[in-house]
Amino acid sequence: MSSIAAMTPQEARQWIREGRWQKPTAGMANGYTQANLAILPRSLAFDFLLFCQRNPKPCPVLDVTDAGSAIPSLVAPDANLLTDIPKYRVYRNGELTEETTSIEHVWQDDMVAFLLGCSFTFERAMLENGIPVRHIEQDCNVPMYITNIACKSAGAFSGPMVVSMRPVPHEQVVRAVQVTSRFPAVHGAPVHIGDPSVIGIQAIDRPDFGDPVTIRDGEVPVFWACGVTPQAVAMQSKPEIMITHAPGHMFITNLRDEEFGVL
Amino acid sequence: MSSIAAMTPQEARQWIREGRWQKPTAGMANGYTQANLAILPRSLAFDFLLFCQRNPKPCPVLDVTDAGSAIPSLVAPDANLLTDIPKYRVYRNGELTEETTSIEHVWQDDMVAFLLGCSFTFERAMLENGIPVRHIEQDCNVPMYITNIACKSAGAFSGPMVVSMRPVPHEQVVRAVQVTSRFPAVHGAPVHIGDPSVIGIQAIDRPDFGDPVTIRDGEVPVFWACGVTPQAVAMQSKPEIMITHAPGHMFITNLRDEEFGVL
Repeated sequence: MSSIAAMTPQEARQWIREGRWQKPTAGMANGYTQANLAILPRSLAFDFLLFCQRNPKPCPVLDVTDAGSAIPSLVAPDANLLTDIPKYRVYRNGELTEETTSIEHVWQDDMVAFLLGCSFTFERAMLENGIPVRHIEQDCNVPMYITNIACKSAGAFSGPMVVSMRPVPHEQVVRAVQVTSRFPAVHGAPVHIGDPSVIGIQAIDRPDFGDPVTIRDGEVPVFWACGVTPQAVAMQSKPEIMITHAPGHMFITNLRDEEFGVL
Repeated sequence: MSSIAAMTPQEARQWIREGRWQKPTAGMANGYTQANLAILPRSLAFDFLLFCQRNPKPCPVLDVTDAGSAIPSLVAPDANLLTDIPKYRVYRNGELTEETTSIEHVWQDDMVAFLLGCSFTFERAMLENGIPVRHIEQDCNVPMYITNIACKSAGAFSGPMVVSMRPVPHEQVVRAVQVTSRFPAVHGAPVHIGDPSVIGIQAIDRPDFGDPVTIRDGEVPVFWACGVTPQAVAMQSKPEIMITHAPGHMFITNLRDEEFGVL
């Protein structure tokens, strides 16, 4: 295990805070849950929380800060969300205006920060069960697709579900459903197995986000609800300001992946 | 099976809407999930939803309406929350001011309705697994206790967790944990097993709400987070207005209990 894998969440976040780590967080503080970030003004927070509540598979909420607070009291009370992520993106009226390693200069007292579960947790469960994760093998980004599955809307927020795809050998598909079902707080069970056209995906080799991966003979494409969904949906409503993590540059919580297992 | 047990949710709600059923809903539309109701002004809705989000065991959210809408679009899009519950309670500044069979005259355009999971669902799972449910055998209300377990606070809302207790034969305690863990959307796994004093309960024979039940030799008291918690917490903040169902007079959803099983 490399030294970054053996770090505690506190050590990893300190490295990040001090600017010693400005790269993606995959592989850091092994076994600890990483999370997506979305920050919105208080005026949009109820609708966004309601959207997440209504669409728990793409939008699994791990923590929500009090308005004006950057402390995620449930998952890492000793962390600071303004500095403890290696790279942030600031969007104004739906346009990316800044990429930055700290958001202390952007933060406003009426902001609410949302931490949402990410697929790293269930991918670890797959790997530990001997189920391959192709984009990790191929060292690229997971392929993501916009589907014809409508999310339940909430106030200003509506849009289609985005899914990620992992090819699974047909004899391991049932096990893949079982092991990922244990983690409903981080996307959980797949939303679709097999024929991509059923959920409105026309070209499996041309994902809408991320990179294409190889599907081998005897493998079935399996689709999970993806954390890109809430960001895409929020962005569509062109909020005056919205802050997210940069892709792959996640927040590292104090909680272990296994703590999210329901059984 | 009696005729009320065989009703569809639509039939049951129509009876209730027409004033033909003004009694508790236990046993109606057998197999369909029943829910607790809490209605609050929009200004308190974010904090309340956040409180539920942070305390999912006592406050399992099944549906939240848009502000001003009485239609629970996820769990019963053909229902009307203003008329489809047999008995409501209206609280003003924390005081019960009215018990009524319709809230059409109280409803305001800025209100948000919350439906929260109730223990009926996991009690059915227990019974179907041959685990006794004492208060059903004794035909009384479940005993409920205020504990020393602090809920995570959110804005105006804070307070202790309320739990319900069911005595379980010691050889069935593990199975009781397993079968109720399948239903995290309706309180899920117990919060405590055994010695009541550990969670701040001094007199197991004198519950804070509901009725005492017999604990037989060889039985262990098992405690689950209780849906009374969010109502008690909201009431403590003395909102200008809050509407709930009357105890036992629940909302009947279109969803089957089994649909909430995570595996």
